[in-house]
Amino acid sequence: MTELAPWRSALSRALHRNRSLVYARYAQLATVQANRPANRTVVFRGFLEDSNTLKFVTDRRSKKIEQIAKNPWGALCWYFPKTREQFRISGELMVVSATEEDSDLLHLREVAWLALSEGARSQFAWPHPGQPKSESEASSQEAIDRTTPLEAFCLLLLAPQEVDHLELKGQPHQRCGYTLEANDTWKQQVLNP
Amino acid sequence: MTELAPWRSALSRALHRNRSLVYARYAQLATVQANRPANRTVVFRGFLEDSNTLKFVTDRRSKKIEQIAKNPWGALCWYFPKTREQFRISGELMVVSATEEDSDLLHLREVAWLALSEGARSQFAWPHPGQPKSESEASSQEAIDRTTPLEAFCLLLLAPQEVDHLELKGQPHQRCGYTLEANDTWKQQVLNP
Repeated sequence: MTELAPWRSALSRALHRNRSLVYARYAQLATVQANRPANRTVVFRGFLEDSNTLKFVTDRRSKKIEQIAKNPWGALCWYFPKTREQFRISGELMVVSATEEDSDLLHLREVAWLALSEGARSQFAWPHPGQPKSESEASSQEAIDRTTPLEAFCLLLLAPQEVDHLELKGQPHQRCGYTLEANDTWKQQVLNP
Repeated sequence: MTELAPWRSALSRALHRNRSLVYARYAQLATVQANRPANRTVVFRGFLEDSNTLKFVTDRRSKKIEQIAKNPWGALCWYFPKTREQFRISGELMVVSATEEDSDLLHLREVAWLALSEGARSQFAWPHPGQPKSESEASSQEAIDRTTPLEAFCLLLLAPQEVDHLELKGQPHQRCGYTLEANDTWKQQVLNP
């Protein structure tokens, strides 16, 4: 079992204090595609048990899957409106798809599927996201099995290596940087905002 | 004078409908540094007059300045909580600093400085952002001239080349892509969400 990273308590506090805003669980995840940045909103799905790894879900057909295969680095920017603070979390991304060979990871993918709402599950049966819309192509009407993830469903994991926490309440602002060292411990440093 | 891009009306509508939330003007800007993504929150400062170019401000000492010098590509992800819609805006970034030689751009930098609040202006006199905090190093106490930008102050411009508009209200979601063509016109296409 990994020790909780020192930034986890600050992030838990932010999640708790912003819990009345459903979109406080939305953050923006940047990846690299052909030396250009890509950026989109993702929904935080909690931490992987006994770890500092953040969970998201995504569609196998989305562009980020290809981007991550070529360059696993991700930069999450997470702004909490109520408490006016920002977490920037960088690390390696990992996609757990239907073809995953590690049975533990496959199990985690199933658990993540079970945790989705019915509406969220149905999106994985929609036509290819980002492709031109075709009038003829309707969403699949097949009933969606609550217990078996659809093929397009992927679990997306972010293992943080660097975290930057900025608090905008008060003057001057407060900023703290956290870096994962080679010995798997976190170095913490107060920074100029 | 540039014609308003077709996505401008949708963005104006989103800004208007979310105007009660001050943070609806905050968006996340991704850049690339050494083949890794970087991502941070920025404040939208309006459009450059008679253009589709978005304005932001930044500190010359922030890491993004160096990143943009090496790779001008930026990806803005802008989520509007009230109307549940997302704009992803990609294009080239341009930094207008104190050493800018184009007098028109220098003038725009001054105008952007004048438009800042006193609190926002004072941040450009703070110690080097992102550096370890030193107890001895205090914020500059010199009076800040309202009319002359501090040396660290930069105007940051994003000239969009691709826009992706996703609306999450309703099922299924609505998505539209806009691409700037070689002849400076925008191609618009309805996409699968």
